[in-house]
Amino acid sequence: MDIALLGGTGDIGEGLTLRWASDSPHDVIVGSRDPERAKTKAREYETELDSRGLDEVSITGLENAAAAERADVVVTAVPAYHLTDAVEGIADALEPDDVLVSPAVGMKRDEDGFHYNRPGAGSVTRLAADAAPEAVPVVGAFHNLAAGRLSNLDTDLDWDTVVVGDERDAKDTVIELAEAIDGLRALDGGPLANAAEIEGLTPLLINIARHNDGMHDLGVKFQ
Amino acid sequence: MDIALLGGTGDIGEGLTLRWASDSPHDVIVGSRDPERAKTKAREYETELDSRGLDEVSITGLENAAAAERADVVVTAVPAYHLTDAVEGIADALEPDDVLVSPAVGMKRDEDGFHYNRPGAGSVTRLAADAAPEAVPVVGAFHNLAAGRLSNLDTDLDWDTVVVGDERDAKDTVIELAEAIDGLRALDGGPLANAAEIEGLTPLLINIARHNDGMHDLGVKFQ
Repeated sequence: MDIALLGGTGDIGEGLTLRWASDSPHDVIVGSRDPERAKTKAREYETELDSRGLDEVSITGLENAAAAERADVVVTAVPAYHLTDAVEGIADALEPDDVLVSPAVGMKRDEDGFHYNRPGAGSVTRLAADAAPEAVPVVGAFHNLAAGRLSNLDTDLDWDTVVVGDERDAKDTVIELAEAIDGLRALDGGPLANAAEIEGLTPLLINIARHNDGMHDLGVKFQ
Repeated sequence: MDIALLGGTGDIGEGLTLRWASDSPHDVIVGSRDPERAKTKAREYETELDSRGLDEVSITGLENAAAAERADVVVTAVPAYHLTDAVEGIADALEPDDVLVSPAVGMKRDEDGFHYNRPGAGSVTRLAADAAPEAVPVVGAFHNLAAGRLSNLDTDLDWDTVVVGDERDAKDTVIELAEAIDGLRALDGGPLANAAEIEGLTPLLINIARHNDGMHDLGVKFQ
């Protein structure tokens, strides 16, 4: 399968790219608004993987819309405040048999800590669904992965990611992609309307990391 | 230490009572609006513990205010919609060196699943703090414990609970009480203003249990 990561040059995009390239048979396309930056980052990721003996992995770098055009699954690894623009910018490149995946979370920080900044639409994942063409299924996933550990291939993961969406096939595709990453377990969170409680977990992970010695780059396991 | 569980006859109250009675040296007082019901439940819990060889454990049952009067730590194990009334009903029994602990979460259910019903005050834990006398420290904890597994002493726990509060000593007292339960790790979540993201995790646990075969009575581990 071809996976495009819009914002693939950012930290969560880097982590997902490296993990899929390292652990799965899928082809990863790094997307960026700037195609030169996408290509430079793709080469950086290849060099990182090559240093680990993964010298046959090829990562493509393309402008976001071109990346989406080529992909079966498009992951919008962009900040929440860029999400609507990013989805609208690639809308023409999406086909009904593609899947759009939103990992973005909106947060605000005050003197007490980080807090979930719930959009009026209900969730950030819902913003992605609202911006996408109606025929394209949108799935929420990968909201609670700490980018630092995700992109450090020296560290093993032992995390869950909760997947929400209203179309069974699209959700199953994303569950399969998530489980292709070693140490990541995908759990079904139900319909897309259940996304807010998943997104709200990310500021909690940051607050816990800030207040407990020796805890950082936290993920979550449900048990 | 003497711990009173207001609403100690309910499911989360039962679980905390049994675990503290079984795992810790602390004395537990079961509170209820109906003192006869409190006594009956306290005897039931004693019988349950006796059947496990814990025949020296004594659990007291009292009307809520009398339970709070005798306790050092008061846990309001009541539904969110009863919380303000429950706290106001025992306010005169609280001293400044007591600690009030709120585990309640507000949820609503619709066709998609369970959702966090965030109060206008910011969190359910904040409602408890607003209802308590100003000099009494309020701590949020035990929001994400599945009552079924908690009250089944045949099952080992391997869960975290996140503790929030604005007063260091009170928070440390609750962290110590939480860690006195075998298999429960207490994590500091920062000030009480960070409670909403903890409370919002409970509907997510229920949604995951509903959508994944073989998963039920879920808790969480941060790692």
